[in-house]
Amino acid sequence: MSSSGVVRRGIHYLQKLKAANIPSDLIEKGQNRVIDASLTLIRERAKLKGELVRALGGALASTSLLGVPLGHNSSFLQGPAFAPPRIREAIWCGSTNSATEEGKELNDPRVLTDVGDVPVQEIRDCGVDDDRLMSVISESVKLVMEEDPLRPLVLGGDHSISFPVYSHASSFARIMEGGYARRLLQVGIRSITTEGREQGKRFGVEQYEMRTFSKDCHFLENLKLGEGVKGVYISVDVDCLDPAFAPGVSHIEPGGLSFRDVLNILHNLEGNLVAADVVEFNPQRDTVDGMTAMVAAKLVRELAAKMSK
Amino acid sequence: MSSSGVVRRGIHYLQKLKAANIPSDLIEKGQNRVIDASLTLIRERAKLKGELVRALGGALASTSLLGVPLGHNSSFLQGPAFAPPRIREAIWCGSTNSATEEGKELNDPRVLTDVGDVPVQEIRDCGVDDDRLMSVISESVKLVMEEDPLRPLVLGGDHSISFPVYSHASSFARIMEGGYARRLLQVGIRSITTEGREQGKRFGVEQYEMRTFSKDCHFLENLKLGEGVKGVYISVDVDCLDPAFAPGVSHIEPGGLSFRDVLNILHNLEGNLVAADVVEFNPQRDTVDGMTAMVAAKLVRELAAKMSK
Amino acid sequence: MSSSGVVRRGIHYLQKLKAANIPSDLIEKGQNRVIDASLTLIRERAKLKGELVRALGGALASTSLLGVPLGHNSSFLQGPAFAPPRIREAIWCGSTNSATEEGKELNDPRVLTDVGDVPVQEIRDCGVDDDRLMSVISESVKLVMEEDPLRPLVLGGDHSISFPVYSHASSFARIMEGGYARRLLQVGIRSITTEGREQGKRFGVEQYEMRTFSKDCHFLENLKLGEGVKGVYISVDVDCLDPAFAPGVSHIEPGGLSFRDVLNILHNLEGNLVAADVVEFNPQRDTVDGMTAMVAAKLVRELAAKMSK
Amino acid sequence: MSSSGVVRRGIHYLQKLKAANIPSDLIEKGQNRVIDASLTLIRERAKLKGELVRALGGALASTSLLGVPLGHNSSFLQGPAFAPPRIREAIWCGSTNSATEEGKELNDPRVLTDVGDVPVQEIRDCGVDDDRLMSVISESVKLVMEEDPLRPLVLGGDHSISFPVYSHASSFARIMEGGYARRLLQVGIRSITTEGREQGKRFGVEQYEMRTFSKDCHFLENLKLGEGVKGVYISVDVDCLDPAFAPGVSHIEPGGLSFRDVLNILHNLEGNLVAADVVEFNPQRDTVDGMTAMVAAKLVRELAAKMSK
Amino acid sequence: MSSSGVVRRGIHYLQKLKAANIPSDLIEKGQNRVIDASLTLIRERAKLKGELVRALGGALASTSLLGVPLGHNSSFLQGPAFAPPRIREAIWCGSTNSATEEGKELNDPRVLTDVGDVPVQEIRDCGVDDDRLMSVISESVKLVMEEDPLRPLVLGGDHSISFPVYSHASSFARIMEGGYARRLLQVGIRSITTEGREQGKRFGVEQYEMRTFSKDCHFLENLKLGEGVKGVYISVDVDCLDPAFAPGVSHIEPGGLSFRDVLNILHNLEGNLVAADVVEFNPQRDTVDGMTAMVAAKLVRELAAKMSK
Amino acid sequence: MSSSGVVRRGIHYLQKLKAANIPSDLIEKGQNRVIDASLTLIRERAKLKGELVRALGGALASTSLLGVPLGHNSSFLQGPAFAPPRIREAIWCGSTNSATEEGKELNDPRVLTDVGDVPVQEIRDCGVDDDRLMSVISESVKLVMEEDPLRPLVLGGDHSISFPVYSHASSFARIMEGGYARRLLQVGIRSITTEGREQGKRFGVEQYEMRTFSKDCHFLENLKLGEGVKGVYISVDVDCLDPAFAPGVSHIEPGGLSFRDVLNILHNLEGNLVAADVVEFNPQRDTVDGMTAMVAAKLVRELAAKMSK
Repeated sequence: MSSSGVVRRGIHYLQKLKAANIPSDLIEKGQNRVIDASLTLIRERAKLKGELVRALGGALASTSLLGVPLGHNSSFLQGPAFAPPRIREAIWCGSTNSATEEGKELNDPRVLTDVGDVPVQEIRDCGVDDDRLMSVISESVKLVMEEDPLRPLVLGGDHSISFPVYSHASSFARIMEGGYARRLLQVGIRSITTEGREQGKRFGVEQYEMRTFSKDCHFLENLKLGEGVKGVYISVDVDCLDPAFAPGVSHIEPGGLSFRDVLNILHNLEGNLVAADVVEFNPQRDTVDGMTAMVAAKLVRELAAKMSK
Repeated sequence: MSSSGVVRRGIHYLQKLKAANIPSDLIEKGQNRVIDASLTLIRERAKLKGELVRALGGALASTSLLGVPLGHNSSFLQGPAFAPPRIREAIWCGSTNSATEEGKELNDPRVLTDVGDVPVQEIRDCGVDDDRLMSVISESVKLVMEEDPLRPLVLGGDHSISFPVYSHASSFARIMEGGYARRLLQVGIRSITTEGREQGKRFGVEQYEMRTFSKDCHFLENLKLGEGVKGVYISVDVDCLDPAFAPGVSHIEPGGLSFRDVLNILHNLEGNLVAADVVEFNPQRDTVDGMTAMVAAKLVRELAAKMSK
Repeated sequence: MSSSGVVRRGIHYLQKLKAANIPSDLIEKGQNRVIDASLTLIRERAKLKGELVRALGGALASTSLLGVPLGHNSSFLQGPAFAPPRIREAIWCGSTNSATEEGKELNDPRVLTDVGDVPVQEIRDCGVDDDRLMSVISESVKLVMEEDPLRPLVLGGDHSISFPVYSHASSFARIMEGGYARRLLQVGIRSITTEGREQGKRFGVEQYEMRTFSKDCHFLENLKLGEGVKGVYISVDVDCLDPAFAPGVSHIEPGGLSFRDVLNILHNLEGNLVAADVVEFNPQRDTVDGMTAMVAAKLVRELAAKMSK
Repeated sequence: MSSSGVVRRGIHYLQKLKAANIPSDLIEKGQNRVIDASLTLIRERAKLKGELVRALGGALASTSLLGVPLGHNSSFLQGPAFAPPRIREAIWCGSTNSATEEGKELNDPRVLTDVGDVPVQEIRDCGVDDDRLMSVISESVKLVMEEDPLRPLVLGGDHSISFPVYSHASSFARIMEGGYARRLLQVGIRSITTEGREQGKRFGVEQYEMRTFSKDCHFLENLKLGEGVKGVYISVDVDCLDPAFAPGVSHIEPGGLSFRDVLNILHNLEGNLVAADVVEFNPQRDTVDGMTAMVAAKLVRELAAKMSK
Repeated sequence: MSSSGVVRRGIHYLQKLKAANIPSDLIEKGQNRVIDASLTLIRERAKLKGELVRALGGALASTSLLGVPLGHNSSFLQGPAFAPPRIREAIWCGSTNSATEEGKELNDPRVLTDVGDVPVQEIRDCGVDDDRLMSVISESVKLVMEEDPLRPLVLGGDHSISFPVYSHASSFARIMEGGYARRLLQVGIRSITTEGREQGKRFGVEQYEMRTFSKDCHFLENLKLGEGVKGVYISVDVDCLDPAFAPGVSHIEPGGLSFRDVLNILHNLEGNLVAADVVEFNPQRDTVDGMTAMVAAKLVRELAAKMSK
Repeated sequence: MSSSGVVRRGIHYLQKLKAANIPSDLIEKGQNRVIDASLTLIRERAKLKGELVRALGGALASTSLLGVPLGHNSSFLQGPAFAPPRIREAIWCGSTNSATEEGKELNDPRVLTDVGDVPVQEIRDCGVDDDRLMSVISESVKLVMEEDPLRPLVLGGDHSISFPVYSHASSFARIMEGGYARRLLQVGIRSITTEGREQGKRFGVEQYEMRTFSKDCHFLENLKLGEGVKGVYISVDVDCLDPAFAPGVSHIEPGGLSFRDVLNILHNLEGNLVAADVVEFNPQRDTVDGMTAMVAAKLVRELAAKMSK
């Protein structure tokens, strides 16, 4: 039943309006005012949260959530666009205590604040195209980063949002070519194509497939990523997990990681974590008592604890 | 599992910060900037939509959606806060054609535009109290109404949002006392308390109970509300329907209206519809293939057709 | 997955024990002590509730719930055995107010008390056969009736419990032959066999089929059953409702009554209601947000209001 | 998750094979042999059932089921292709007695036999195109009709199968233009487009919309279609029902018929019913305890009783 | 929808009755009679089962089930109160054979009998307070233990029932302080607070967290608890399992034990098991085909096999 | 709701017809014609697929699917009969790429073709008994094998189909006694009875229980089965997996293999795989987003890749 109707319709009627001799000047000015107002709102919210953390003092790095409710550009699955509010609810729901596994207190604003959502749907409904929307998302992430010591943890959204967050690169090829990253590791891969494997090799991407996970896991649970690099970025696709652990995703592929596997890698990783995202959680498929919302929320909590200091 | 954790936490940590000698001045200024930026964003979006409709010409009244994702203030059920995006998705989903039952074309922006959501969660997370939040919602509705010929159709949210939409009255007693309405009709009532019945009588509210619906329905399907009044406001609680037709609500009470009963009343009503809302749809309980989302969406579509002209 | 394993096993191992030369005397004495203790417990609970109602004064008839968690004797569907606790929960759940549609206050113990459940499973597990179990159920109902002004409203269980409640008759043939009833009306019938129709005629049972409900409903909504009879007994099979209104039943048969149809018949019926039951609610099939539990609970509430005075 | 992958893949690899210089002659001969064997199998099954009914004697018309597990040609919803086995299971499941509402005995082979399914998926997987597949379906229906007194009741499948059943017309325009029908009535319509209404008028189709059903139902429940026509064909789209009664359909549109509305029309219709179909039941969406399977099955049962004599 | 309405209401109306000058003497005497009759019933059932096992001969220790359908005292989650009947059904359901993994035969009454449920809801509804209810539960467990060689396996209910079973201690602090236990081990812990950890240390509780389970599992799978102690008590919170394995619990916390992990610890443990419980299974959340009921049942089966000898 | 009603009814009415003096000759001739036509259809489909693969050239062994929609003979669970179409859909669904984990391309007809289903239901409905049906299934498998280089991968159906596929042996006792196999290994066993273990030993079956899997897995993940044997047959009961990974099976037994465990064994096995089946997937229980369909499909994909060369 889901569809990207909202998006397509937005663009569609704006095009009809141009054809109907509505001056495109009028439309563009309106769009600019809406985008300016959107970024002003993100800036003010980030600024308030930054001021509070600085006034409390003592934080070198402080995680702040930023929701990007963006659905798949080209696919019929809208679900991930609804994920950010569901993850937030699960982070703070009564059945969870406020400390992480290694004992950090999430109720301390120096550990975790929230800047809210980028108003993605409203921007699209004003006829703004996706390239410009990606710039707004990048700009929003930057607005959080500028409020030192805030560090953004982005709640997707589908995995396409990892790239505007990451300075506009649209694939790992562009990430590596553009020099945006010195090393890129992929974990939890299943059913990769031969092309995928070759492209990975060509660009020096380190790909860890599930087929060999039992051999690789010792290495992966002792990663040191800190030497000679400015910072580490972690993007967690929820569907790296086996669907037994995370049924609420768009594409079900048996044979994935267990939840504990992911936490083991995360907890033991050494490196300066500067930003992160949790993507591909699809609430429309999370029919087993909201189990996957809890999985996504715990990933966010443990990432937040890792990032803040 | 749901809880109003997000809200309570927002207020809670702001209070702790005050106790921690963070100057309350700093907090208040930040809140003011966030609220100003929020209203600016609503204004710009309403303005763009109003400009477009006026540029197209020919519309005397033009429905525009405004989402108010507000959960129950005092209850543990957060669900209705997630309703607006789900209703929008169902309005435009591929399996429905774009015309209403009486033939109005929803793809025409003169019939239906969208101003997006009031950023309720983000405002609460900045520590803004609920009284002030209600003012922001009232103000947002007013911003839509000022963009003639736009007329607001509010997507709740729980039924508490009908009142800020309606100039701050918090119950029908206050609506009637304050002179905000000349007549108030309630349809679909079950299990009303003796106090409820008496209070209704005292304030001249016309209450139609399900017990006697088979006798009342001829009158209700031929309502003329237009004489001597400026305008008609319709608030549809989705739970007026029997749970067989709309299981996705917070409070299940068997013995309600059928979907066709509601449409028959709506289609045949005579009067100048100036605003409306659809409230109390709870996506967290809509487990039967999104059926209640489709029900809420069709109510919105038929109300939009009724309101636009 | 459900099965009558608990029952069959109870009987089975008792039989093995007899074969193993365990003196049957020992077993029978133990069974007698367990049955005596069970009836003593029902008596004491009924007595306490009766004393309270009489001490409050002013009640001519006062409904008291008695749960009979009895599954189908011969079928694989155990579900109705789990119904009584689920119905009680739905009667008192927070989302419903405590008054009935016609304004009776259920919180008043003169309107509604509860004697609890007959311990059906435990009696069966002691190897007591079903004939004797039926006597225990009949005896339990009588213990409630003896505590004037208590009047029993039995929560099933499957519809076989209507008969021990009703003095051991095991079918309407036996009810009519035994002279236990002067008139017997059946409403909501679909797909009756030719034999069923003929047997009905032979015994003077008044059968109202759904095929002709639109013609019969005026008569049924104006029933006068009070003349010349000591009392009226109402047995509501939840599956008289269309599965759209009550999916949580063992046997789904489309084309049934709406919930309002049932309430209209009940509210307008004239007669001295002395006992009633609500049967065939199956919680194992009530997958839509507990909707059928709410339906069964509202039937109990409205029956209780009708019976108490 | 569903897709028409099986179909597309079938055609796709056959095309690749042609490009790979596999002689198309080899493919075509193989396809012809498969289609001949498929029709032989249908013929032999129909013949056996026809022989049995004739040997029993006394039947003027005898319903025989024919499954056509055909999914939507162009849409992503495959569900209806899985409907025939699910409907058969529900027809004979233990919880239903074998008589219809008006007392016909379904266990009598003169009332109901079964010719099984047309092997639609296998034919498609051999690379046979959809035009030819439609001829195979038409031919299969004819094979049943030739075995007098068998009359086919087709189990869809989506509603596209009504047309090959009905001599290749692909829409009501073609049905009316081709002279395949003298009158065509449509009941249960919601949200029809202006074009749909105009086309209906142009071709003399009698369209009954839900908007006016309370006024039209007296006429529809007393239809006489027998005068001057050879026979009546009834096609029941399960989605004519309100989703409260039949949630298991591909396209949810609230405001439809109740189950009893449909039976009232069916039972009271006068005319010589020569063939029928039940289409658009989608088992993949029938999540409420198989309720829609029971609905489809009861429609089949009552249609079978109506058709046999 | 769930609530502790039944309980609260019981207490509430008894209080109102006191205020209404109903002599509290009358209420107390009635409560005493109900409690005496309840304990008599438990005693008679335990006695019959004890007599049977002794008559069969040869058992040193013989497991007997005792259900305690007690919901959370202070929380809105009633679910575990419905667990005992669901677990019993799953223990004996047709799809499971009657032998445990290590080959013990559950159909032998020397291995497993059943004393039925403590009538918790009925006692509460008579206005008995929770302290006294806890005494009734403790007393009921003692009544089973006195029937040598019966050993109680308690079916919860929430984990608060572990303590009345365990001589009234209400937390591990009180268990250790009171000298009720010499060693206390906790396994499967996630997200423990700093306080929890410190309190554990102070009282000498051995806490095994999931973070370090891969290091600890060798030790835990080779536990010798028999030296110098009278007996071992095992309390299994079903939520120690990862929700992938046991979704039907009140509080979902990813990262738990696998089902095999739990069985490995249990099977290899050395010690004299004198009593046990299985708690925190919540049937209201067990939506995945009753999977968690099967998990709870298998835990009960394997515990029963371990305890009987 | 499920039942073997279709089957039993088929046999039942045929018996009644015999009693009604319908010449049994007429019935038998009809059955023979239907069986001949069924086998002709399988032969023609296999022949076409064989011709295509041979025309493409280069294949030594080429997997071809054969569906056998056969429900449990003696049980009330019909579900597995509906599995083949659901597995096919999941194999080709859009969310999966067409390469297997080790890189084989499933879109190549030399790797995977499809012969369709044996028309099991239709044959049963003609009154053919189960012994003869089993011969038809064996014969169908042989028809695929005769089309060199096709090798059959059978989609069940319940596990009873492994035996007609395997030359009529009805249990492992008969397989071993009849000399149909030189070695027989069973993996993933839980809760085996003492008899089962002893019978296994007597016939030299190698049984690997879950209790000892962590010790056995090194051996099982390095199986060499190729020496001195003509071929290896693999039968995968989906319920060897833990229900966390595969909830959609008829009998839930916690404590099974993980999906990766199964793949590790399969990928590393050395031997000449000549035929295989995937059985016991029950779509009626696959309520978690079709997860088990995906599991069954991936097993089929990886088996197909292993078998083709």
